[in-house]
Amino acid sequence: MQITLTNPLDMHIHFRDHAMLEVVAPYTTKSFVAGVVMPNLNPPITSVALAKSYMRRIQSIDDCFFPICPLYFHEDLSFAELQQCVDSGLRILKLYPKGATTGSEKGVSQILSKKTLEICSIAQDLGMILSIHGESNGFMLDREYEFGEIFASLAHAFPHLKIIIEHMSDHRSIPLLREFKNIYATLTLHHITLDLDSVVGGKLEPHHFCKPTLKTPTDKQKLLELALSADPKVSFGSDSAPHTLESKRNGAAGIFSAPCLLEQLTELFETHNALSNLQAFVSDNAMRNYCLSQWLPPLRQKQITLTKSPQTIPESIDSKDSKEDVIIPFHAGKTIKWSIKQICEV
Amino acid sequence: MQITLTNPLDMHIHFRDHAMLEVVAPYTTKSFVAGVVMPNLNPPITSVALAKSYMRRIQSIDDCFFPICPLYFHEDLSFAELQQCVDSGLRILKLYPKGATTGSEKGVSQILSKKTLEICSIAQDLGMILSIHGESNGFMLDREYEFGEIFASLAHAFPHLKIIIEHMSDHRSIPLLREFKNIYATLTLHHITLDLDSVVGGKLEPHHFCKPTLKTPTDKQKLLELALSADPKVSFGSDSAPHTLESKRNGAAGIFSAPCLLEQLTELFETHNALSNLQAFVSDNAMRNYCLSQWLPPLRQKQITLTKSPQTIPESIDSKDSKEDVIIPFHAGKTIKWSIKQICEV
Repeated sequence: MQITLTNPLDMHIHFRDHAMLEVVAPYTTKSFVAGVVMPNLNPPITSVALAKSYMRRIQSIDDCFFPICPLYFHEDLSFAELQQCVDSGLRILKLYPKGATTGSEKGVSQILSKKTLEICSIAQDLGMILSIHGESNGFMLDREYEFGEIFASLAHAFPHLKIIIEHMSDHRSIPLLREFKNIYATLTLHHITLDLDSVVGGKLEPHHFCKPTLKTPTDKQKLLELALSADPKVSFGSDSAPHTLESKRNGAAGIFSAPCLLEQLTELFETHNALSNLQAFVSDNAMRNYCLSQWLPPLRQKQITLTKSPQTIPESIDSKDSKEDVIIPFHAGKTIKWSIKQICEV
Repeated sequence: MQITLTNPLDMHIHFRDHAMLEVVAPYTTKSFVAGVVMPNLNPPITSVALAKSYMRRIQSIDDCFFPICPLYFHEDLSFAELQQCVDSGLRILKLYPKGATTGSEKGVSQILSKKTLEICSIAQDLGMILSIHGESNGFMLDREYEFGEIFASLAHAFPHLKIIIEHMSDHRSIPLLREFKNIYATLTLHHITLDLDSVVGGKLEPHHFCKPTLKTPTDKQKLLELALSADPKVSFGSDSAPHTLESKRNGAAGIFSAPCLLEQLTELFETHNALSNLQAFVSDNAMRNYCLSQWLPPLRQKQITLTKSPQTIPESIDSKDSKEDVIIPFHAGKTIKWSIKQICEV
């Protein structure tokens, strides 16, 4: 039994930078043709020059992978900078509410302020896409839900601006996809397969701790259904977010899910008799919704053939940092049923 | 400004045993006159002989403190053993659902089984008290709520058996106190002052991870109101549960709240203009509801005078175990407004 996926896309990845980038990027670049690499570095990617330089560092690791780098949304963005962004082939703006997650210190404090709305208006006029980490500063289980009215306000005010609810984690956000033509979402593997029990239900499990936090079994189930049906408005975005073991021990949020990601997705979709929807979920939906062929350079074509052959996810990965620390992957040590048999690059 | 508390009682404490017992017990015995010391040791306190021996070990540390040791509820308890228990001045049975928390491996798997109900019936006839860690094996936010029907069944079947909902954590349990004359509760300091945000809302905080897990802001608020009003059916039980830092790093559940406990309670009650209810919450309610004067030996009288004078909770405490590990107290390093000025033992 085998399945071939064409041009898999990971629409939300954290590659970090420098030594960490070199360690983690290959787990994604090997099997994905392109991906949205998050700009919440330190300092964040707030200019075209920084974005271009970051993309070059990524491509120097694997030039068969195309890194789509969003510009970090900040309140000093000007029309000229946004125009330059689009002219340079950068079409995505990533908005973090200040303080919501790792690297959001320079994010936006007042999302519906005049200045922010002006930037959204320019972004709409330039045909850009607005990706949002949508969380209020309320109680953790309600943060995404409370942010819903901001998604609705923006979608209403800018009907031609495509807005992405990144790593949707709350089933109460799903109606926004139905109500607004211009709202889309990415879904992670962990939010569609785990709930809070995996963090605090037994022993405390830091390797399942992430932002937005995992939520209830109902959230998990409803979001899983969205993924399995390859709902046309959702795309896969792993939110793979590596931290060293020491950082995790100090409370850092993030799950490093890049290793064996396509294999795990294949196992999940097979278990639920939804293999025929996997191609749409990991590639076609994003290709269409983000209109990638209109603004990306021609991608290398990648065909990934997976076969039912067991493999074990690594227990840990050397982070190659100065402290000789390791990174623990999602489901470290677990045996999964599928493996990549062949990668064809054209 | 000062307040004097007479005979404070901590109706739910974990003292552990051996070196750990020697380290942690004095934080409680100094300022409480008696307390319910939990029997989930390894092996658990399943016989009168084990209980008596454990109580002696505690009293050898401080004989001005009376340790009330419940018998660990197990399915092989006989009428003779329960009778012996009561004859020896042990009146409390502590029931753990198997696997619900630390040291619950030998707990009860089928709580409404014929055998368990027989033991409850004997306990009722002997005038015993049944303390329960009431959690289902469902989703963490619903575990106590789902267990509610077992509390109701037991309270209905044994109307003369006093049943204690230990460390009530879910506001949906409060109606059980109203509906059943024979249902009572203990409340911890952490469940009435924190919610899940303190564990997973920012960085991951293992020192706020406990079972039952902290819940929502609504739960916190409603349980706080119950405590501040010194609702006649609730008593204070800290559930102080020490673990070494290494154990906490390995995911152990439990908050070591014993250090500066009366001081923190006083600060809390003062902040909410409820100081006049503190005596009932930390002593009188338990004295009355458990009918302590009827079955305990006469207690040494203890009067604790607290004054408004700031102090800092220790950052860590030497566990005196072989690994030279430490124990991190609840709110380690925090400065609180009240201190104990005088302890009078009569």
